[in-house]
Amino acid sequence: MGKLLIVGSLAFDAIESPFGKTDKILGGAGTFIGLAASKFHVDAAIVSVVGNDFPQEYFDVLTGRNIDISGVEIVKDGKTFFWSGKYHNDMNSRDTLVTELNTLGDFNPIVPQNYKDADVVMLGNLHPSTQLSVINQMKERPKLIILDTMNFWMDNTLPELLAVIRHIDVITINDEEARQLSGEYSLVKAAEKISEMGPEYVVIKKGEHGALLFHEKNIFFAPALPLEEVFDPTGAGDTFAGGFAGYLASTRNISFENMKNAIIHGSNLASFCVEKFGTERMQTLQKEEIDKRLHQFKALTQFNIELQ
Amino acid sequence: MGKLLIVGSLAFDAIESPFGKTDKILGGAGTFIGLAASKFHVDAAIVSVVGNDFPQEYFDVLTGRNIDISGVEIVKDGKTFFWSGKYHNDMNSRDTLVTELNTLGDFNPIVPQNYKDADVVMLGNLHPSTQLSVINQMKERPKLIILDTMNFWMDNTLPELLAVIRHIDVITINDEEARQLSGEYSLVKAAEKISEMGPEYVVIKKGEHGALLFHEKNIFFAPALPLEEVFDPTGAGDTFAGGFAGYLASTRNISFENMKNAIIHGSNLASFCVEKFGTERMQTLQKEEIDKRLHQFKALTQFNIELQ
Repeated sequence: MGKLLIVGSLAFDAIESPFGKTDKILGGAGTFIGLAASKFHVDAAIVSVVGNDFPQEYFDVLTGRNIDISGVEIVKDGKTFFWSGKYHNDMNSRDTLVTELNTLGDFNPIVPQNYKDADVVMLGNLHPSTQLSVINQMKERPKLIILDTMNFWMDNTLPELLAVIRHIDVITINDEEARQLSGEYSLVKAAEKISEMGPEYVVIKKGEHGALLFHEKNIFFAPALPLEEVFDPTGAGDTFAGGFAGYLASTRNISFENMKNAIIHGSNLASFCVEKFGTERMQTLQKEEIDKRLHQFKALTQFNIELQ
Repeated sequence: MGKLLIVGSLAFDAIESPFGKTDKILGGAGTFIGLAASKFHVDAAIVSVVGNDFPQEYFDVLTGRNIDISGVEIVKDGKTFFWSGKYHNDMNSRDTLVTELNTLGDFNPIVPQNYKDADVVMLGNLHPSTQLSVINQMKERPKLIILDTMNFWMDNTLPELLAVIRHIDVITINDEEARQLSGEYSLVKAAEKISEMGPEYVVIKKGEHGALLFHEKNIFFAPALPLEEVFDPTGAGDTFAGGFAGYLASTRNISFENMKNAIIHGSNLASFCVEKFGTERMQTLQKEEIDKRLHQFKALTQFNIELQ
């Protein structure tokens, strides 16, 4: 059983979509990553920060899945990070209505002693200096460091972002962000340029259009499972990353061939995440459902052309 | 060796893209479909119409690949269909600059006697009544009738389009057209509704995002091969359809499993088509190149997760 260290927000989300509206519910990159990773046989811990408004039942969601939360700081007089967004009818674009950083604003992550030797480190979308601070606390170089980021950090803290991605193995970003970071429209060229910045592996997430994994001259692609209905895309990218990281940590095999499997597992879990609001579907998700849908992924993508 | 009957335009195209500009060059759905299908061991014929301005060398491109052109009418005092378009920087959208229907305006297709028993009929994008007229000329029901169409016919001749698609087996349209025809945003639901209109198989083309094949509750997906550069997308959809139809005709096997292979072959050929202007790349394309890229498709999509 491999050790996985997750760094990412625990948050309140309030979501509007064509299907309805939620109050403040459990959200945050760290939450979605943790829930996805917990579907694998892995020793996972989350490093994060919350305010004293973060309810015990939300901690229980994590600890109930054997996720270590000893690295979650509770700021006594602080409030938990809050995000609110509204999805448009096509579910592919959204407006952010509210972002209250609160305690996340001066988050100073402390890696618990017994996770300083984690096999895999998954750095959720956060200030790049926060991400770098976690890398610097590791006792030895992890087998694999995965980093997720977004356009906000490219716009506002590019030097810090470039500093941290020099030290990582895998970057996960969406197609527009890959184009922004590289200045290349072609995703093949974009991945090549980004790889030169540090990460040997570049994962480009294309939402409903699937995900690409680039490594040297190799490319692997996983589609998103075509669904009757996408209910709420919030957390799908983090769930994908959590499944990817969790599978790799659990198998302790970071070969390109095994990363292909990890991409499929991540895509598979993400296809559940979007079926209900927030973390709801990930909380009820059973192993049998996961396995059944892996069969669908196989049917969706595997063919049998005899090649010479 | 199966017989494939292709109905589609032979045309002059003039193309502008960020990479340059062409004079009037060989184009047309029938041309692209024929060139793609000719990569397989198939007895193919094109039914079409041109003016007396259509040069012998363009006919030679087709006959040199054993494509029967006895069903191509040459209108003595007419001009050949002419299309001109300009691609935007992202290559995903284009403006039509000129459409001169010319002889295609009152095209009355005559199926040659010895192709009235074709195994597969590929109806390229044309007026739906023209497409229906071809079906009505067949001596017996072909094993498979494939139809390509576009939003123009949905906007202007919807009753005629609905009339013809009742008689076909496979429809190929792009995602926006599938949404328009069905009134459903979800492609899963769209395919279901379209299937109720007639075709048992629905192929939804998503350009650079690949293609989906729907049949009852089964879905298969083929990505577009990620390319460093898309030079000219003209004819990619027709090349995809031609590869799909040509492979099915050559194997005379219309099982869903074999259709998966056909989708891959179509996607493979389309990935070459976009590498040069017009038909240029398809004219020089060699079997070794095709086989090599099929290996890339396999590496791109095949994984090895053990399932129970």
